[in-house]
Amino acid sequence: MTTEPPAALPMVVPAQGLPPQVRIHEVGARDGLQNEKATVPTEVKAEFIHRLADAGLTTIEATSFVHPKWVPQLADAEALFPRLDDLTKSRGVHLPVLVPNARGLDRALALGARRVAVFASATESFAKANLNRTVDEALAMFEPVVARAKEAESAHDQVHVRGYLSMCFGDPWEGAVPIAQVVRVCKALLDMGCDELSLGDTIGVATPGHVLELLAALNERGVPTDRVGVHFHDTYGQALANTLAALQHGVTTLDASAGGLGGCPFAKSATGNLATEDLVWMLHGLGIETGVDLGRLTATSAWMADQLGRPSPSRTVRALSHKEQ
Amino acid sequence: MTTEPPAALPMVVPAQGLPPQVRIHEVGARDGLQNEKATVPTEVKAEFIHRLADAGLTTIEATSFVHPKWVPQLADAEALFPRLDDLTKSRGVHLPVLVPNARGLDRALALGARRVAVFASATESFAKANLNRTVDEALAMFEPVVARAKEAESAHDQVHVRGYLSMCFGDPWEGAVPIAQVVRVCKALLDMGCDELSLGDTIGVATPGHVLELLAALNERGVPTDRVGVHFHDTYGQALANTLAALQHGVTTLDASAGGLGGCPFAKSATGNLATEDLVWMLHGLGIETGVDLGRLTATSAWMADQLGRPSPSRTVRALSHKEQ
Repeated sequence: MTTEPPAALPMVVPAQGLPPQVRIHEVGARDGLQNEKATVPTEVKAEFIHRLADAGLTTIEATSFVHPKWVPQLADAEALFPRLDDLTKSRGVHLPVLVPNARGLDRALALGARRVAVFASATESFAKANLNRTVDEALAMFEPVVARAKEAESAHDQVHVRGYLSMCFGDPWEGAVPIAQVVRVCKALLDMGCDELSLGDTIGVATPGHVLELLAALNERGVPTDRVGVHFHDTYGQALANTLAALQHGVTTLDASAGGLGGCPFAKSATGNLATEDLVWMLHGLGIETGVDLGRLTATSAWMADQLGRPSPSRTVRALSHKEQ
Repeated sequence: MTTEPPAALPMVVPAQGLPPQVRIHEVGARDGLQNEKATVPTEVKAEFIHRLADAGLTTIEATSFVHPKWVPQLADAEALFPRLDDLTKSRGVHLPVLVPNARGLDRALALGARRVAVFASATESFAKANLNRTVDEALAMFEPVVARAKEAESAHDQVHVRGYLSMCFGDPWEGAVPIAQVVRVCKALLDMGCDELSLGDTIGVATPGHVLELLAALNERGVPTDRVGVHFHDTYGQALANTLAALQHGVTTLDASAGGLGGCPFAKSATGNLATEDLVWMLHGLGIETGVDLGRLTATSAWMADQLGRPSPSRTVRALSHKEQ
């Protein structure tokens, strides 16, 4: 199996008004593996993350410090994180981790985590389903966590806090989500101290006009675009078109998942994360710097697909992996 | 299995500068089925095309009048086309067919076809592989076919000629294809009398800047955007993002294939046509009129996937077909 892109392809042709470089926030090892039925051994996770770093990714979400009962697939956070010390300490790779509460934050900080993320919901239904709280109760839960992370910052060189926001475009129970409602929660997350937002299209229903309207509404309410990342799912095949729209608006923090990890393409439960390789193909064609070696990344995702025993849903991985999968 | 979209989704949010309506040129029954290993019975093809029309598609490429030896999957063109008479005669549906030469054109016209298409190549390698001719020899072959179609026009109310152009962005042998080379063949097709072009990204390598640059180059050489359609493949997951770029340039003729027909997603040989459902999801979210009923279209593609015995590669079809596929 080779994973070399075809010679001189994609042809590099920049488009007007796009940023010259972006930061890919790689979520495969956390958001991807969290949704796998099988539990992946800690060694395999550590190797996966090292391979992602070797492929040039510099922000790799590593794991989640939630209670193991909630997310058994990531119950090995304590065992995994120390195996990644070389990446943070000598190679400058950022390894954000999810923290749901003060206890999770303490565990993460004790292990040396310097990038943490909280995860709120734009809708009441999902806040209830995911956190068993109202939207505002969830925000109240995260407020002291963010405050404590910011406090820790004075002791360390940096603690960067990301605020994930789920269901920013549509919700399986509520349908379309009003933009004002999303903006309100975004503002609350920034007001409590989050450094960056990640706008999640958790069920993958957004289309480009909706993306642009939300970004414009955030700007109008004083949220600068450089504080905003986008996290699109490919459930309806819209993720890359939506990412293009976000790039056209100036967004430079793009979430994606190596190999499209995050749900089997044949299962109803597919979360369908945007595949990092499909994103990188577009960005490189547009002449936008990512620092990623697409051949190495594709080889990594093909390797991970073998570990999981099923083909990658990334179209680029399939196209570049010269075997019948 | 239901195929109803989630309530009120996608949320309709237009984006500035996009056309208010488009024409989808549906290629599943021809470009899709032509690439199937199994030969689909004529009755099934006829039912498929009727169902596509019932779902609101108004331009449905029906078959190909090439020599049966070349494309055995479409060897039943003579038997199929008369079964579609109701669509052309009383329902105003356009049913374009491929014609490689004068003999094919005569067969098609005799059966009442009023929209035909020739298929040229932007690269020498593919002209050789597909037509065993140079690019210019292929153009010379099509010239009398187009002339004859235009002659027939004086006898009938209308004969519309589409010129397909393959390998407009990349070629598996030659790599990136120079834009000037593509423009030259486009001009030749229009000069010989083609009413419309379809710019094919046959191996799916294009990215949005490349698309915009080719469209601008065509405009500069006097080709108006309303003579140009785009035909993107999803081999690297780029088709919908490229289509968005084309829309932003003003293109209103968009090729797509119901259910993404046109190659198994797991086979190296996947041609990976853009799935009509994924396209319609985006267009409807953008408030762009298509005339298509997405629920009916999805049900049609799910039905066709059952006929073919494998899941649809369309993400929208999978998301809306509530069963584990």
